[in-house]
Amino acid sequence: MTTKQQREQLAHQLRSIFEEHVPFNRLLGFKLASLDPKNPRIRFDMRPELIGNPQRQILHGGVISSVLDLMAGVVVHIALFEKDSEHLMSRDGRPVFPNIGTIDLRVDYLRPGRGAWFEASGEVVRMGKRIAVAHMQLENDTGELIATGSAAYVVG
Amino acid sequence: MTTKQQREQLAHQLRSIFEEHVPFNRLLGFKLASLDPKNPRIRFDMRPELIGNPQRQILHGGVISSVLDLMAGVVVHIALFEKDSEHLMSRDGRPVFPNIGTIDLRVDYLRPGRGAWFEASGEVVRMGKRIAVAHMQLENDTGELIATGSAAYVVG
Amino acid sequence: MTTKQQREQLAHQLRSIFEEHVPFNRLLGFKLASLDPKNPRIRFDMRPELIGNPQRQILHGGVISSVLDLMAGVVVHIALFEKDSEHLMSRDGRPVFPNIGTIDLRVDYLRPGRGAWFEASGEVVRMGKRIAVAHMQLENDTGELIATGSAAYVVG
Amino acid sequence: MTTKQQREQLAHQLRSIFEEHVPFNRLLGFKLASLDPKNPRIRFDMRPELIGNPQRQILHGGVISSVLDLMAGVVVHIALFEKDSEHLMSRDGRPVFPNIGTIDLRVDYLRPGRGAWFEASGEVVRMGKRIAVAHMQLENDTGELIATGSAAYVVG
Repeated sequence: MTTKQQREQLAHQLRSIFEEHVPFNRLLGFKLASLDPKNPRIRFDMRPELIGNPQRQILHGGVISSVLDLMAGVVVHIALFEKDSEHLMSRDGRPVFPNIGTIDLRVDYLRPGRGAWFEASGEVVRMGKRIAVAHMQLENDTGELIATGSAAYVVG
Repeated sequence: MTTKQQREQLAHQLRSIFEEHVPFNRLLGFKLASLDPKNPRIRFDMRPELIGNPQRQILHGGVISSVLDLMAGVVVHIALFEKDSEHLMSRDGRPVFPNIGTIDLRVDYLRPGRGAWFEASGEVVRMGKRIAVAHMQLENDTGELIATGSAAYVVG
Repeated sequence: MTTKQQREQLAHQLRSIFEEHVPFNRLLGFKLASLDPKNPRIRFDMRPELIGNPQRQILHGGVISSVLDLMAGVVVHIALFEKDSEHLMSRDGRPVFPNIGTIDLRVDYLRPGRGAWFEASGEVVRMGKRIAVAHMQLENDTGELIATGSAAYVVG
Repeated sequence: MTTKQQREQLAHQLRSIFEEHVPFNRLLGFKLASLDPKNPRIRFDMRPELIGNPQRQILHGGVISSVLDLMAGVVVHIALFEKDSEHLMSRDGRPVFPNIGTIDLRVDYLRPGRGAWFEASGEVVRMGKRIAVAHMQLENDTGELIATGSAAYVVG
């Protein structure tokens, strides 16, 4: 199997797991907009159910923490795959659920979550044998930085 | 108006705002189970949509961060009311939306979010003129501590 | 060897390591005031070198984060000893340095660090096979809560 | 007074305050290596007193949190000066101590603090009327990323 094929299979697995098989991500409408390993992105549209303050029409803080948590999970999985291309692969096509655990999450709420749509990005800043740490960002449709975050995962 | 009346009105306002008028809290099913100012509690039932890992049947990390964020907002509002009983009160019965902002949130994920229902509690550990800080906990139906958190708010 | 003896040996080891053999703790003057496993405490005196703001005569934020970091290390070591009484024990009396690593630390600065002396306390809220999480507090000589913190450690 | 003069005066004030008048920074040997507003840097040398683990010869976690805390303070002050060039200026040459307060700090410890010297950098990611948030990094002499951090300040 070529690396290109492996990457396509990883992309397929990540989409299958995170978009389709995780009910909460479906509830919130989170989509993997890019699975480029160098710049993966999650996108979601503003919807009435995601509002936290109806007078100000802004995202609930929980939506922001949820998408940053997911973004961290995605970049950690991509980094694990870079180390071991068998990661997340199944022979029979059924999704292999990740065996990683969030240790903690910090979110800095920088600006009100206002916009028609939002996009999260992230990167792994530490990938150890046991611990991974990711940094994440959320921007709105005008490129405003809405929030940043940091999350630690146990990976081994 | 007596203090008892004021407290009842505060409880009514908090319920109206947080349960009914915040769409995201309705989506997740968060309920103010107790508005005792000394021990307010938020409760929610496990539901399929709140699942983060379908193999392990546990809560999504985003549900946990969302309920802790809400819990912090509730205890901060109660503490603001203790300082100024006019806080959140409207003369015409319409909800007065809070004018506070989350600065940041940290969540420690201690144990898998497994259970039939969950209950959050919290307390304000600092109430300044400009900044409030709250600590929060989430337990499951067997009393296991699932997560703890800390949040800072700008209140003035 | 009895449990009482083991505890005394643990106390001796902890003092030896943390007070004498860690140069930075000596520089700051941190002392293990109590090694009661149920309520260990670190104490230090205000000294001119620990000042962060000379006009206000308050502790530097770094002193506060340093003592909370140490407090977390101490409670994690005590908890590891409760699980495995051979932890930190050496046969020849030389200190056995801990093989744990701090993953991250959060400090909430609640009140100005003013006082003649300060005392830190803490507790382990999660002790897993690989990860431990501790909560910590710092009070001044009048019992004011100066800061709280949370730290995650890799322990296995 | 020209902008260039103002910047030089700011640099002089920052050095005077943070290096000379804050006893704890002197104790740890923190130096403002660059006061370029676009890329300010703090540098310090490894010294025996800064060791946290004598077997591994690495920095104490408290040294890392202390320098990141200071770095955040420096970038916040520079950003306040960009908004209001009278900030930190005194007419008689005596240092004007900043009137900002740290709300909280998070540090991610990514790699062991090993090196002959270390350099911190940082940036303000939010400058509001009341709240500022900074991100910080610490690298060693080989450019390894040792730690990252995030801090919130009350500024107004």
